[in-house]
Amino acid sequence: MNDKTEKIILGIDPGTNLMGYGVLRVCDRKAEMVAMGIIDLRKFSDHYLKLGHIFERVSGIIEAYLPDEMAIEAPFFGQNVQSMLKLGRAQGVAMAAAIHRQVPITEYAPMKIKMAITGQGAASKEQVADMLRRMLKLDAKEMGKYMDASDALAAAYCHYLQMGRPASDKKYSSWKDFARKKGIV
Amino acid sequence: MNDKTEKIILGIDPGTNLMGYGVLRVCDRKAEMVAMGIIDLRKFSDHYLKLGHIFERVSGIIEAYLPDEMAIEAPFFGQNVQSMLKLGRAQGVAMAAAIHRQVPITEYAPMKIKMAITGQGAASKEQVADMLRRMLKLDAKEMGKYMDASDALAAAYCHYLQMGRPASDKKYSSWKDFARKKGIV
Repeated sequence: MNDKTEKIILGIDPGTNLMGYGVLRVCDRKAEMVAMGIIDLRKFSDHYLKLGHIFERVSGIIEAYLPDEMAIEAPFFGQNVQSMLKLGRAQGVAMAAAIHRQVPITEYAPMKIKMAITGQGAASKEQVADMLRRMLKLDAKEMGKYMDASDALAAAYCHYLQMGRPASDKKYSSWKDFARKKGIV
Repeated sequence: MNDKTEKIILGIDPGTNLMGYGVLRVCDRKAEMVAMGIIDLRKFSDHYLKLGHIFERVSGIIEAYLPDEMAIEAPFFGQNVQSMLKLGRAQGVAMAAAIHRQVPITEYAPMKIKMAITGQGAASKEQVADMLRRMLKLDAKEMGKYMDASDALAAAYCHYLQMGRPASDKKYSSWKDFARKKGIV
């Protein structure tokens, strides 16, 4: 049973080909990695089977680790409207799995996650993974095995770092407000 | 209990402010309207509460009417990447509710629905609603009460009209193929 000082954070990096996840346990302000991995969506040629698989797998991860909160890496820009619609659907399905189980969601722009972890918004995937590895005391082999999942773990870690921040920084009154506070409009 | 010749089709018109739904019963190749209405999302200022409400309401409609199939009106173009991401999420959540209950989904572009019902891809909302009203023998008052839901009922009716068509017209081997067959790329 979780005591009051323990919190489980599920990080998700939703992609349409590979979806990463990372589970972080925060206890007495110390964070440790519990699980990380990828959901491989490349094997599904059918678009709905793909969405169905995302829903089933994210639901399964939530049931297995019972996260208190979900942190999701959410880019707000894409190449074109087609890719954004596709990404929005994948995000929506992953979010539905969390909402269905009353897990609160917080979104972070990729740059915000990089900034929170490395201090640089333009850090590379490798720099983020390397910093995470050192902060969570993971060995390189363990981390390297799931390179695609490190972005998801980074989202969870970013959420852990934000936890002490005032709520005003994280709450949005509308999509417009949300976009404005993310620095999009 | 449904006999083999009866089919229930749920039509959904997913919007981010108003989401329309329409339920059609098809029995011996005759269609009748069972229910139609709107899910008002304007009252939710929080983006996640909005997505949560879509999931709960679509799930409730599926549990109430036990549709065999879901037809969804899905525009493939939007003003900008932001609006497409937002729409994609709303679509994804509605789709997750169907996928979770093993209800197969078919998407139709707005122009395809208009074309199937009125014979004109550029028909107005009113022309579509008027044609539907006559085909389903609904009185104007009944139809007018749920003007916003008529697009959803039109999606269900379009699916009913497509039911006899060869499967090759409806199956897609990939998103690319899907987009190609919808005439997007």
